[in-house]
Amino acid sequence: MTVIYEKVALIGLGLIASSMGHAMKRAGVAGEVIGYARSKETRDIALEIGFCDRVEDSAAKAVVDADLVVLCVPVGAMADVAIEIAPNLKSGATISDVGSVKESVINAVAPNLPEDVSFIPAHPLAGTEQSGPRSGFAELFDNRWCILTPNGMPHVKEVSDLKSFWRALGANVETMDPAHHDLVLAVTSHVPHLIAYTMVGVADDLGRVTDEEVVNYSAAGFRDFTRIAASDPTMWRDVFLNNKEATLEILGRFTEELFDLQRAIRRGDGEQLHDYFTRTRAIRRGILDAGQDMDVPNFGRNMPHDD
Amino acid sequence: MTVIYEKVALIGLGLIASSMGHAMKRAGVAGEVIGYARSKETRDIALEIGFCDRVEDSAAKAVVDADLVVLCVPVGAMADVAIEIAPNLKSGATISDVGSVKESVINAVAPNLPEDVSFIPAHPLAGTEQSGPRSGFAELFDNRWCILTPNGMPHVKEVSDLKSFWRALGANVETMDPAHHDLVLAVTSHVPHLIAYTMVGVADDLGRVTDEEVVNYSAAGFRDFTRIAASDPTMWRDVFLNNKEATLEILGRFTEELFDLQRAIRRGDGEQLHDYFTRTRAIRRGILDAGQDMDVPNFGRNMPHDD
Repeated sequence: MTVIYEKVALIGLGLIASSMGHAMKRAGVAGEVIGYARSKETRDIALEIGFCDRVEDSAAKAVVDADLVVLCVPVGAMADVAIEIAPNLKSGATISDVGSVKESVINAVAPNLPEDVSFIPAHPLAGTEQSGPRSGFAELFDNRWCILTPNGMPHVKEVSDLKSFWRALGANVETMDPAHHDLVLAVTSHVPHLIAYTMVGVADDLGRVTDEEVVNYSAAGFRDFTRIAASDPTMWRDVFLNNKEATLEILGRFTEELFDLQRAIRRGDGEQLHDYFTRTRAIRRGILDAGQDMDVPNFGRNMPHDD
Repeated sequence: MTVIYEKVALIGLGLIASSMGHAMKRAGVAGEVIGYARSKETRDIALEIGFCDRVEDSAAKAVVDADLVVLCVPVGAMADVAIEIAPNLKSGATISDVGSVKESVINAVAPNLPEDVSFIPAHPLAGTEQSGPRSGFAELFDNRWCILTPNGMPHVKEVSDLKSFWRALGANVETMDPAHHDLVLAVTSHVPHLIAYTMVGVADDLGRVTDEEVVNYSAAGFRDFTRIAASDPTMWRDVFLNNKEATLEILGRFTEELFDLQRAIRRGDGEQLHDYFTRTRAIRRGILDAGQDMDVPNFGRNMPHDD
């Protein structure tokens, strides 16, 4: 595989950045990978594991001469990082990110960048509930989608290079308008996470009386929620603070539907419930057909080696 | 393993019944397994696969001489089945079930049974999103909980035998009051399912505009919901119709918490959000400690053989 970017700077070295480091090595698309994280311990781990070739103790140093700079910090931290690195950015460099929201990232970063760089925000739709530099692995992006939301002037070659880069990391790539991205992600990710957090919170609140029971009987359907609710609190706080409009719109639709179902339950309207559940079962098939999940019962959880 | 019940009748031959058939054979706890399902095709499949030794074309015939009768039909069908089988039940037989709710099952079945049987309702907390006689497998109950809610006179030996039976099938066994069961399950299973159905419905509603996008980007957190929402619509309709009070109570708590979080988002209260997410992350650890799930990131979904 040919090198696409001679020097790639990763700002922030958590799950996504470490996985990018592993995947870049697997694909051979980067000449040198330079990493920065606030904590020395994290920087040491990155070198120890080897998903960075070099680490620096400031973001400003890490981006010197970099052809691609990827901001892998919480959305709430991006403005400050952009301000710090701006003076050291090479002319013609590509600046990107991996944030879960796009309009806010653009608002935070774009005004602080010089004219002579290409700002191409990105969002790789991949992750696990783990965090930190030891959690990354090369296969994280395989067959997942990475959405690019190019901002401002269309830098055709730079967008094309970044697409090739993400494809080399294993992903499918799509471009879209940032506001549209934020709405679609509110539906498929942000509001589901919020709901999962809430359901776990309700159980915990009840759990002060029946703590062991709630934990023991969680295999009955609740565990799916707990996996989602184990995600990184800082990242998710920033997602909700930064995707407010779309989140509130989808939450509104959700509560309308929920109250509709609640009324059907109160009235004992079995037909409405059955129709609703039948309709939603079909959507699962659509997701399997789109290839986004294993068609193995219970996500493969009934393999003999489990439990 | 010693035979606990010489003749076991399974009424209904779906996921749970077929898995019980496989697990009983694995454990050697039943002398003969007799099955009944409404459809001839299902009965033929049960014989073909071999998780029943014999099938009958009526429930009344299937329970003749049975030492254990397990009702594996939707909760809404149990009263009629109880009425049909009552005249043919052997004196001293144990009648049980596998329904997801317990108070309603007791109300539907108990009044229709003769005095000289032991009615010990049960609920094995296990399942996948699959349905039907081909979906069962022996390991379904391994390390899962089975809750017994003995009704009426405490038939000490009969309860003890049924506990041994379920332990031989791989489960841990607990007994509790049926109303308490229904509340705990509303929290850990019923309301999470309802919420999953609703979220999938919202996405589908939006999906008429962005159908492929919602499906493609579902890997971002939505897929967990879709797995839950792929469960059997009939079974779930009956669960909600038959666990109304507990479901509505938990839904009420849930919407209170959700509106609280919604307001935090509207106000931009990052601290409240972060505190809430941090608290709920700890509960995941509790579930892993209780041994109810694999401590593998992403439920093992990042294995190289996936996708």
